[in-house]
Amino acid sequence: MAVTDIATRTYDHGWRLDPIVRSLLDTDFYKLLMLQMIRHLHSDVRATFSLINRSTSIRLADVIDEGELRAQLDHARTLRFSKKELIWLAGNSFYGQQRMFSPDFIAWLADFRLPEYELQAIDGQYRLRFEGPWTHTTMWEIPALSIINELRARAAMRDKGRFALDVLYARAKARLWEKVERLRALPDLAISDFGTRRRHGFLWQRWCVEALKEGLGRRFIGTSNVLLAMDNDLEAIGTNAHELPMVMAALADSDEAVAASPYRVLEEWKAHYGGNLLIVLPDAFGTAAFLEHAPDWVADWTGFRPDSAPPIEGGEQIIRWWQERGRDPKSKLLIFSDGMDVDSIETVYRRFQGRVRMSFGWGTNLTNDFRGCDPDGGTALEPISLVAKVIEANGRPAVKLSDNPAKATGDPAEIARYLRIFGASGQSASAVRV
Amino acid sequence: MAVTDIATRTYDHGWRLDPIVRSLLDTDFYKLLMLQMIRHLHSDVRATFSLINRSTSIRLADVIDEGELRAQLDHARTLRFSKKELIWLAGNSFYGQQRMFSPDFIAWLADFRLPEYELQAIDGQYRLRFEGPWTHTTMWEIPALSIINELRARAAMRDKGRFALDVLYARAKARLWEKVERLRALPDLAISDFGTRRRHGFLWQRWCVEALKEGLGRRFIGTSNVLLAMDNDLEAIGTNAHELPMVMAALADSDEAVAASPYRVLEEWKAHYGGNLLIVLPDAFGTAAFLEHAPDWVADWTGFRPDSAPPIEGGEQIIRWWQERGRDPKSKLLIFSDGMDVDSIETVYRRFQGRVRMSFGWGTNLTNDFRGCDPDGGTALEPISLVAKVIEANGRPAVKLSDNPAKATGDPAEIARYLRIFGASGQSASAVRV
Repeated sequence: MAVTDIATRTYDHGWRLDPIVRSLLDTDFYKLLMLQMIRHLHSDVRATFSLINRSTSIRLADVIDEGELRAQLDHARTLRFSKKELIWLAGNSFYGQQRMFSPDFIAWLADFRLPEYELQAIDGQYRLRFEGPWTHTTMWEIPALSIINELRARAAMRDKGRFALDVLYARAKARLWEKVERLRALPDLAISDFGTRRRHGFLWQRWCVEALKEGLGRRFIGTSNVLLAMDNDLEAIGTNAHELPMVMAALADSDEAVAASPYRVLEEWKAHYGGNLLIVLPDAFGTAAFLEHAPDWVADWTGFRPDSAPPIEGGEQIIRWWQERGRDPKSKLLIFSDGMDVDSIETVYRRFQGRVRMSFGWGTNLTNDFRGCDPDGGTALEPISLVAKVIEANGRPAVKLSDNPAKATGDPAEIARYLRIFGASGQSASAVRV
Repeated sequence: MAVTDIATRTYDHGWRLDPIVRSLLDTDFYKLLMLQMIRHLHSDVRATFSLINRSTSIRLADVIDEGELRAQLDHARTLRFSKKELIWLAGNSFYGQQRMFSPDFIAWLADFRLPEYELQAIDGQYRLRFEGPWTHTTMWEIPALSIINELRARAAMRDKGRFALDVLYARAKARLWEKVERLRALPDLAISDFGTRRRHGFLWQRWCVEALKEGLGRRFIGTSNVLLAMDNDLEAIGTNAHELPMVMAALADSDEAVAASPYRVLEEWKAHYGGNLLIVLPDAFGTAAFLEHAPDWVADWTGFRPDSAPPIEGGEQIIRWWQERGRDPKSKLLIFSDGMDVDSIETVYRRFQGRVRMSFGWGTNLTNDFRGCDPDGGTALEPISLVAKVIEANGRPAVKLSDNPAKATGDPAEIARYLRIFGASGQSASAVRV
């Protein structure tokens, strides 16, 4: 007897929308940590986020139907944190700490919804912006990116037969498992999933996370995806992002205040979080300038996440700095998370093993590596470099310099001003692929 | 809402047997062709088939539970040809010919059931025998082998988690698709599935056949599995097997009659079938002896299936023989089916391309290549060399010499007698892996 669940099949006949984001927890953990602080200290700030497609050759508006994109964004706006999710946020421990989120914040989250969006197709690209209170627009970053990336993947797969899809996923699974087997050879590896925003799709990210949990055991320390952390009893991983110093600098009234803003962010952060959450993200306006002018207490923080310098050079630079400041790098932590894949993870691991504590945040190349997997060939499933960045705070332009000029964002005149303030020493350009 | 088909799940709770063989058409096509002839000419012959595990280091009775094996064999004995199957056998054309099977034979099949079996576990191996009319015992060969091979695979996978199974099949699918892509590069390839008896499992064979259909297009000429041919609108492929000359020789009253038996089989065959079914299987008692003493009309047959000589040497030998007999090899067909895989297919294809028509029967390495696919490691899923051979006809011992002494079967004294009759020239030993 052939068994078909007729109710399911009948429901499928009338299929309207397969939602990409089904929970507000389907976001990166650092968003919630930052949000609690933003709400506490900067609830009056308005911030505008904008989609930026750095892979300009990919004409997203030609690939993704605008109606489908609106339907997904609209669906995300219908979401609320469920009771189960709020109870878990309140009751779970994060980074070994109970009650990371205050009851007041949890109560505020209960009413949270994503704010409006502005969407236009212009010259083959989408202009997608989120304007409003920083406390709300910040929460669009991850769902907006994962929606666009998954819609792009769906478009690439729309005309494929069942069989081509079967081979596609078989290859991608086999590929990931080869990576798992290579990573297993690194005995002291600590690695986490950072791949939510760039994922091929939610179900695929879930499979990848389950694969790392199964295959890497204690080497797999968790996921940045809060929903997957909850559902799989994994640690939620993440600290803070460039938007904090970018907004602080945008709001600053003088060049001196701009120059001080990266350290002001750290002071604010330290007032809210401790321990392994004391991770410095040094490269918003260039790591060299950041280190040169950093107050001595910055060297007491747990570690750094160099996010745009080449990992070996960036790591060595920070280790040297710790040593100059009389700190022992062996007690410090470096987190590598910029476009890592197995080759670079192995190289970095071997370079720094025994000299510093290390962990890796594995993003695009974990959750969206379908290169060469399509039996029909083509590159439509290759990942692209898509970000959603803060571009304005209280009406003033926001800027990121980065250690890699290819990753700089903002108005050119403002970038020039920031380069005068921070200098361009130590910048090193390299192509941004993912 | 999580969707579960409660009826299916409840049925699964009470799972008793997942039948491996669910249709009497789940067998090789040549069995039906031979059966029609055996019934016509030799319905009074009794023949005993026996399981022979040439991979003696694999202790099958330690791996496969006897109760499960009996349950599967018993289930196979409950099967009858369904009306749909008989109508298809009667109405379909095979090798371009309508009404390949006579109405009389089809009517006889309607009452067919597999005969009894004798099963004992002895010293870690199964003694599995089928005694009775040749018309019935012959039909056990394929289901018995596919049952044992699948039970062995199931045992190897019993303790695996969902995830390990997922990676296992992903790797096997990716592996097969790499093979498909290599075979696509051979423009005039003609290949068919010969993997029923040695398959990992029925569902896996079905996937493999669908993969070849999708990936090789017209290069994939069909499958030996009658059920899969019917269900996928593919050609059923196959002609005849060693059991015909083995039984004829066993029944022969003199050494001269033994020596003549391979040609007598061909005469009987030619009285029943024509065209592309006129394929000589020359190696039952050694190809060299067969060719040396063959009547001239054998060279008029469509082709040869060298089944135990190394393929290049075997092919060259037959091509020389055709030339010596004044036939043009370009009009002839060679079918290679002994342990082929992509490497050997490519080599043989390149060697003979343009010199002879060729086709390949791809067996174990198509439907049971899980080598290195198990994420837990181990060799429990590697294929073994398991056959079911006729060992007696009307109480007299049956013998196969083969071109490879490692494939010889039968009583040692009888083998010695056959070697005296046919000679051992041209025999060349090589390890039998699959």
